Amino acid sequence: MQIAIVLYPGFTALDAVGPYEVLHLMPDADVRFVAHQTGPVLADSGALSLLATSTFAELDQPDIVLVPGSSIATTAAMNDQELQQWLTKVHETTTWTTSVCTGALVIGAAGILRGLPATTHWTAQSLLADVGAESRPKDRIVRNGKIVTAAGVSAGIDLALWLAGEIYGADRARMIQLVIEYDPRPPYDAGHPSKVSPDFLDRTLSTMVPAEADHPGTSH
Amino acid sequence: MQIAIVLYPGFTALDAVGPYEVLHLMPDADVRFVAHQTGPVLADSGALSLLATSTFAELDQPDIVLVPGSSIATTAAMNDQELQQWLTKVHETTTWTTSVCTGALVIGAAGILRGLPATTHWTAQSLLADVGAESRPKDRIVRNGKIVTAAGVSAGIDLALWLAGEIYGADRARMIQLVIEYDPRPPYDAGHPSKVSPDFLDRTLSTMVPAEADHPGTSH
Repeated sequence: MQIAIVLYPGFTALDAVGPYEVLHLMPDADVRFVAHQTGPVLADSGALSLLATSTFAELDQPDIVLVPGSSIATTAAMNDQELQQWLTKVHETTTWTTSVCTGALVIGAAGILRGLPATTHWTAQSLLADVGAESRPKDRIVRNGKIVTAAGVSAGIDLALWLAGEIYGADRARMIQLVIEYDPRPPYDAGHPSKVSPDFLDRTLSTMVPAEADHPGTSH
Repeated sequence: MQIAIVLYPGFTALDAVGPYEVLHLMPDADVRFVAHQTGPVLADSGALSLLATSTFAELDQPDIVLVPGSSIATTAAMNDQELQQWLTKVHETTTWTTSVCTGALVIGAAGILRGLPATTHWTAQSLLADVGAESRPKDRIVRNGKIVTAAGVSAGIDLALWLAGEIYGADRARMIQLVIEYDPRPPYDAGHPSKVSPDFLDRTLSTMVPAEADHPGTSH
């Protein structure tokens, strides 16, 4: 089973690596990191690069496609013609087309979410309408047929585990969960806007979102 | 604040990238990926490489050190003389020395856990005794002064969030949690040995741990 994880400059690394760590533990998983060129692709922190192993041109029939989001380059990925044409083409034959975080806007720009419910990072929920999708801000994973969108960043782990269960059954998914010891115990409980005050939400946006951010929903 | 995330051939990617995604969001975070040489370091899947940005020789006084584990190369990292000498030296001046998964055995091999309680991946808990540490298999994070060990793979996210709170306070840590939307909702509840049957545990080991594994506790 060929799994294509898309990389583009400025992607959020955990959006890609969380699902990768789950999906590569599926039987016969053949994970490729796909980008314009092979070689390093710099994440949005500017501190970490992942290596693309395949080009878009090389990979024409992946079984699973996963598109990560970005805090600085979502719009660029939405306007990236080669990426968009590749998404449109491979989506015709995928068994699953998936996104994490603002990756929903990236697959949405290819028309994939038109008329469908979807989720994305909480800061970008309102922008789903721009790609014809219906925002489901309370849902961590939203599935429509072979299309699955996940909420922000760490939600990709939940998405991938769910997907492993759909494809290979609950038994295998539970084994993967045990291997990656995914028994989360966050020391705080502030992982969703519904769990914090409006004031805290405002302070988070003003403190954590850089002026140059191109996480579309967070411009302020 | 300089944060050195160690890479060695065969490391588990999420052990490193989970904490990275949290720690780079701390104020003034200067994250480096450190290895023998700069350039790509292949993770244990064989499918993903991360780029090392610094060599051990270049980085002599990181504030925070984080050592990931591995499913195939823990023993190699424990016997890697340059890595071990670097850990011993930088540990003298770190403000935090931390590990994820079997990274505990790697820092343990440098004598850092002698006489201390610690945790690691559930398959490797019994091996903590070999480096003079006391296993705490129920704990997701174990702290002793400036030394913090985390359980397997995904536990690094909890570790890093806890650490951000210790250093910059709960308010900042909660902001980071919100930004990475860390509101985990695993579709299954099998993330810890205490949550599955002995039979399921055995089947997981025989199914998921390759014959060539060098995740020391899992040889069977």
